[in-house]
Amino acid sequence: MTASLEAPLHDAAETDVAAQVREVAQRAKVASRALATATRATKDAALHALADALVAATAEIVAANALDLDRGRADGISPGLLDRLALTHERVAAIADALRELAGLPDPVGEVVRGSTLPNGLRLRQLRVPMGVVGMIYEARPNVTVDAAGLALKSGNAVILRGGSAAAHSNEVIVRVLSDALVAQRLPGDLVQSIDAWGRPGAVALMHARGLVDVLVPRGGADLIATVVRESTVPVIETGVGNVHVYVDESADLSVALPILLNAKTQRVGVCNAAETLLVHEGVADEFLPVALAALADAGVTIHGDETTLRLAPEEVSVVAATDEDWAKEYLSLDLAVRVVDDLDEALDHIRTWSSGHTEAIVTRDLAASERFVAEVDSAAVMVNASTRFTDGGQLGLGAEIGISTQKLHARGPMGLAELTTTKWVVQGDGHVRP
Amino acid sequence: MTASLEAPLHDAAETDVAAQVREVAQRAKVASRALATATRATKDAALHALADALVAATAEIVAANALDLDRGRADGISPGLLDRLALTHERVAAIADALRELAGLPDPVGEVVRGSTLPNGLRLRQLRVPMGVVGMIYEARPNVTVDAAGLALKSGNAVILRGGSAAAHSNEVIVRVLSDALVAQRLPGDLVQSIDAWGRPGAVALMHARGLVDVLVPRGGADLIATVVRESTVPVIETGVGNVHVYVDESADLSVALPILLNAKTQRVGVCNAAETLLVHEGVADEFLPVALAALADAGVTIHGDETTLRLAPEEVSVVAATDEDWAKEYLSLDLAVRVVDDLDEALDHIRTWSSGHTEAIVTRDLAASERFVAEVDSAAVMVNASTRFTDGGQLGLGAEIGISTQKLHARGPMGLAELTTTKWVVQGDGHVRP
Repeated sequence: MTASLEAPLHDAAETDVAAQVREVAQRAKVASRALATATRATKDAALHALADALVAATAEIVAANALDLDRGRADGISPGLLDRLALTHERVAAIADALRELAGLPDPVGEVVRGSTLPNGLRLRQLRVPMGVVGMIYEARPNVTVDAAGLALKSGNAVILRGGSAAAHSNEVIVRVLSDALVAQRLPGDLVQSIDAWGRPGAVALMHARGLVDVLVPRGGADLIATVVRESTVPVIETGVGNVHVYVDESADLSVALPILLNAKTQRVGVCNAAETLLVHEGVADEFLPVALAALADAGVTIHGDETTLRLAPEEVSVVAATDEDWAKEYLSLDLAVRVVDDLDEALDHIRTWSSGHTEAIVTRDLAASERFVAEVDSAAVMVNASTRFTDGGQLGLGAEIGISTQKLHARGPMGLAELTTTKWVVQGDGHVRP
Repeated sequence: MTASLEAPLHDAAETDVAAQVREVAQRAKVASRALATATRATKDAALHALADALVAATAEIVAANALDLDRGRADGISPGLLDRLALTHERVAAIADALRELAGLPDPVGEVVRGSTLPNGLRLRQLRVPMGVVGMIYEARPNVTVDAAGLALKSGNAVILRGGSAAAHSNEVIVRVLSDALVAQRLPGDLVQSIDAWGRPGAVALMHARGLVDVLVPRGGADLIATVVRESTVPVIETGVGNVHVYVDESADLSVALPILLNAKTQRVGVCNAAETLLVHEGVADEFLPVALAALADAGVTIHGDETTLRLAPEEVSVVAATDEDWAKEYLSLDLAVRVVDDLDEALDHIRTWSSGHTEAIVTRDLAASERFVAEVDSAAVMVNASTRFTDGGQLGLGAEIGISTQKLHARGPMGLAELTTTKWVVQGDGHVRP
């Protein structure tokens, strides 16, 4: 088991764990009240203090991280995961800088979303207010610990963190540093709490703490997200899985299509907004595919193609025959499924069948095709003549993001600060009663 | 069991039910596509056609309703429930009129929620689009069948209805009439479907149809809502339970406080925005309570009071001693819990402990008290010198409502047409790639 943050409770019965996690949530709820009415100046000063505290504790954080890395190597976790887990002096500095950037963003709290005076004279305002308590269940990425704490703080919320056990030592130190820094700023230390000490039963208890936890954001692989969605009675926002399509239309400017395709597939692999399937209109397949497949192969991409793609591929490019599994898969690697479609209808059909509703792009010069694609593709983001990699809170100007929602409730697409708030109706009268 | 809408399947294994309900949802999803891009004119014309069809079918609807009423009486259901279940010619006309009013409301679909041009030239729009498929689980109120269908249609969604079995005959006819009227308007009949024929297993299957159903709205008693919240993997919006407080501050104009209190408690009983607890500042309790309690008693209200209230009650008013159960209870009847508090802090504390987060009101002339109450009460709606009965989509100018959300995710307070939509990011470039 992982290091404990408070009393070690690994042998406690599940009901005890539930009670203790509810106590954590109760403390978070009380702490959140102090923050709900805090001014932006207070919150921004706290964010700077958290950043300074992290930098000051770099040696201790890196040392704790070394323990996690040692165990990770011993457990044989993949080089990719080890890289995500690793903290260096530079990475701690970058994580701290992200908190300082958060301080520079506008405060979502207090925004008047709607307002009016009714015919009977009632004054109506719908105000943006903090959620209260945000739960976060994620995998072994210690930077998410700081990100989530910073986003929650800026949006006026307390946060309860459940990180992957592979990052337990790192997270334990980070949470302690953040919590202490909050206390030094005369804010409640309970605004940032971890439940890692309670292991898996603790995570389950968090999922059932409805009424105390206002929203739960799972961030990680498909299995993690599916478990949280199934188990949780706390409202969940599903993030992340991106089976992303690029469709090259008959009318596409192919000199625009190629860089978009390469950027979408290869600019960064292993992220949810990277392209996983290329659809090409059969009218341009002869011209586009040989060039595109060669360029992809040069970039190290393995092609999984349908029959037409197999036929059109240049000799030097080896293409694997695609199956339904390929259309369904979020590779998160240098692989790409490629299919030639008869027309826009077949492209839309393919996307309807296989997309995870994250991001799809069309490359076209035809206004009607672009309008149909925008109207009929049912995804969080639709790109016209732009790379799918732009579906990102930072890129879209929302500031930081806590994840990218692929569900339709509450938040869809990049979830920034506003998506961590709710609203409250304030109705002001002069003795108004309902007739 | 209730009457079946299609093939009778009451003996089918649960897995069959799940497959069949998923098929219903699949058909709803396909149908929703035709509506997603429909113009407001098309949708409004359809709403008028549905209204006309209901009126034309009044005799058949009332006859089916009579069967439900007969069975309800035989089963000994309460007069209140029988009243909610009953349909007359006048009620059918009123239900149809509500559809015509919906046609008069603005279309939420297509609204540009946010938009900008980024420094790199990308054009960004966040558009309001339909959810897709809305599920509705409710109790024996046939008017909800029509309301939900109308709201879904206007907001561009297909709806899957699971009504209470006590209204099965009524709902069967209503759904058929609505569906046929849609077909006559050249819209898919599958936009309005019922799964009543599959009984309870059907409802469970609906709760598990994640990916096909985009949101589930339970509407009814606390038990129904708790079951849906616990069982559902489809995102749920919790509606309804209102343990609503009125706080009369030390500085209150008592001639304003009394009508607000009486309106909040007695204007309509059995609704979620009716007051259930009165809190009175001890500085005005001597003056206010004897008058208020007498007026409440005159209106037929039974008082459940704390010790001070018991002491201050006029002799002719009998007061029951209140317990914690009274503070917790949503009476939905002519009962009111009454407590004298030391100050605003104690009032806020009481509300924090017992409120369901629906609506609370303060009656005050003190600006600081009103501002603290507004800031610190964590409810969907906060009233200042106004009756709690104004928490209502119609009263607040949102048009019709599908329910009142007491959770913080997606919708908080009255849920109107906008709350039945989601958003989509549309990003337009000229070959933009991410550097």
